[in-house]
Amino acid sequence: MLVVGIDLGGTEIKAGLVDSEKGIVKKISHPTEVEKGNEKVIENITSIAQELMKDVEVRSIGIGSPGSIDRSKGVVRFSPNFPEWHDFELGEHIRRNTGVDVFVENDANAFALGEWYFGKAKGLTDFIALTLGTGIGSGVVCNGVFITGKDGLAPELGHMVVIPNGPQCGCGNRGCVEAVASAKSIAREAKKLLERYPDSLVLKLAGSKEKIESRHVFEAYKQCDPLARVVVNFAIDALAQAIGNYIHAFNPEKIIIGGGMSKAGDTLFVPLKETVKKFVMNSFAGTYTIEQSFLVEDAGILGAASAALYAGRAI
Amino acid sequence: MLVVGIDLGGTEIKAGLVDSEKGIVKKISHPTEVEKGNEKVIENITSIAQELMKDVEVRSIGIGSPGSIDRSKGVVRFSPNFPEWHDFELGEHIRRNTGVDVFVENDANAFALGEWYFGKAKGLTDFIALTLGTGIGSGVVCNGVFITGKDGLAPELGHMVVIPNGPQCGCGNRGCVEAVASAKSIAREAKKLLERYPDSLVLKLAGSKEKIESRHVFEAYKQCDPLARVVVNFAIDALAQAIGNYIHAFNPEKIIIGGGMSKAGDTLFVPLKETVKKFVMNSFAGTYTIEQSFLVEDAGILGAASAALYAGRAI
Repeated sequence: MLVVGIDLGGTEIKAGLVDSEKGIVKKISHPTEVEKGNEKVIENITSIAQELMKDVEVRSIGIGSPGSIDRSKGVVRFSPNFPEWHDFELGEHIRRNTGVDVFVENDANAFALGEWYFGKAKGLTDFIALTLGTGIGSGVVCNGVFITGKDGLAPELGHMVVIPNGPQCGCGNRGCVEAVASAKSIAREAKKLLERYPDSLVLKLAGSKEKIESRHVFEAYKQCDPLARVVVNFAIDALAQAIGNYIHAFNPEKIIIGGGMSKAGDTLFVPLKETVKKFVMNSFAGTYTIEQSFLVEDAGILGAASAALYAGRAI
Repeated sequence: MLVVGIDLGGTEIKAGLVDSEKGIVKKISHPTEVEKGNEKVIENITSIAQELMKDVEVRSIGIGSPGSIDRSKGVVRFSPNFPEWHDFELGEHIRRNTGVDVFVENDANAFALGEWYFGKAKGLTDFIALTLGTGIGSGVVCNGVFITGKDGLAPELGHMVVIPNGPQCGCGNRGCVEAVASAKSIAREAKKLLERYPDSLVLKLAGSKEKIESRHVFEAYKQCDPLARVVVNFAIDALAQAIGNYIHAFNPEKIIIGGGMSKAGDTLFVPLKETVKKFVMNSFAGTYTIEQSFLVEDAGILGAASAALYAGRAI
């Protein structure tokens, strides 16, 4: 079965023709052009979809987008990438233009579905998928069911409070794991600490304070830089505590981690796995593994396509 | 449909004949007599079940027990109430003696099922049930599915770490919500603080330090006792943080709270509800209610009966 998967980013639309068995068979991209207005964005999504649908029979289109999505209606309630969209009927617009069913999904949930159909969660009934990027996104399959909750808002595992009265989070709360262990939070903490560690390798690697990203902090951590050690250990402790909590809540077989920060690889995963052990009860020891996603650059397209495959399953 | 529900306590076996529509139609109890050995316990469970099955057709028997249960096999892996039991085939023993199917369930999960069939969760697809007692037990239904996870170990929401390096928990970890906000933890903290608050009302209400229970602390809290205020506020903050985290994970319609400590009623529920708000993201505001269970003394029997009804559903 063929579907189109569209990874709707703020600057670029990445899209692919996806075979449910073989994965991506064709891939194209186009600037989103948010600055040219709503109609242009819809036009760009439409033409990229039509390009992929040329000469083949496509079952449906899946669109993954950051923000709050009403998946039952294909509506974007709001999205950080599209400030003009409020309860915007994205799915209906694209359906009208292309003539096929369109399913819209939050990008983190789409990532989890992508892992289920094409990644390390293939065939599993119980797993958790996390994206470590600007924020911490999550998707959960438990007892074979894609967990969404009463209003479709679950799971927001990035907003699990792990440190009472901890760092301020974008959500308005304090001490969410996202406020400590996301790529953005790690860069923010590193910048803050530069005053105390003016000779930090982080600064040398980034070139200037403004340019510091989490990857510089992880590279410096690998080289035993003291500032990086403080920041990364703080982040890993919080993330490990959160993952321990997820394990106790859902008893998953795998925790699969993707997103930009996962590219740190062993530098992140080795200490993270060790620290998670500290938080896991004896009865859960050995029940789970923590793994790096291998979908990488294709995760967005495959996730969006999987949202279409999953939604289509229920039709 | 009629089933037997058996609430297997360490000192008393409470059992009932339960109609799936009408609830408990007959109730009896008997000392467990753990001290008389394993065979006597089995004999007591058997005779109480047979007594309830007299002259009626019973579909199956449900048994709720504290401890780690393998519900697929009716096996008690271990239970604090029955130190001799290791991978004990409780279900098979009772099935052989009575001739009907027997389903064994952890008491906290049974409580959640009891709420689903007979309590405040009737007809809901998404809810969380918590028992606040010696420990904090939990059961979750999400997207209409009773959440158990890959190995049937989920959910252990009482062992969510909410305070890094917080009070020692019986599970070996530190800072679990159970280690701060269970009835046992509240009594323990009150006893500890007596040295600093020797005139505390808690001591007067309990009679002696050794006799202090959480109910004395809540009664003193109601009367603005300083020691009680310190202990209860600490517990409520931790419990509210945990409940906020559960809400973000599962997006439930209701959080239903039972167990001995829930009898504190408004003294607990009013400040708890207010504090939970602090931890809940705007997008989840108004999506949930926090309610006191009304099953009270019958919760154990109805829970065990519901475990039989739920398991029987899938046969």
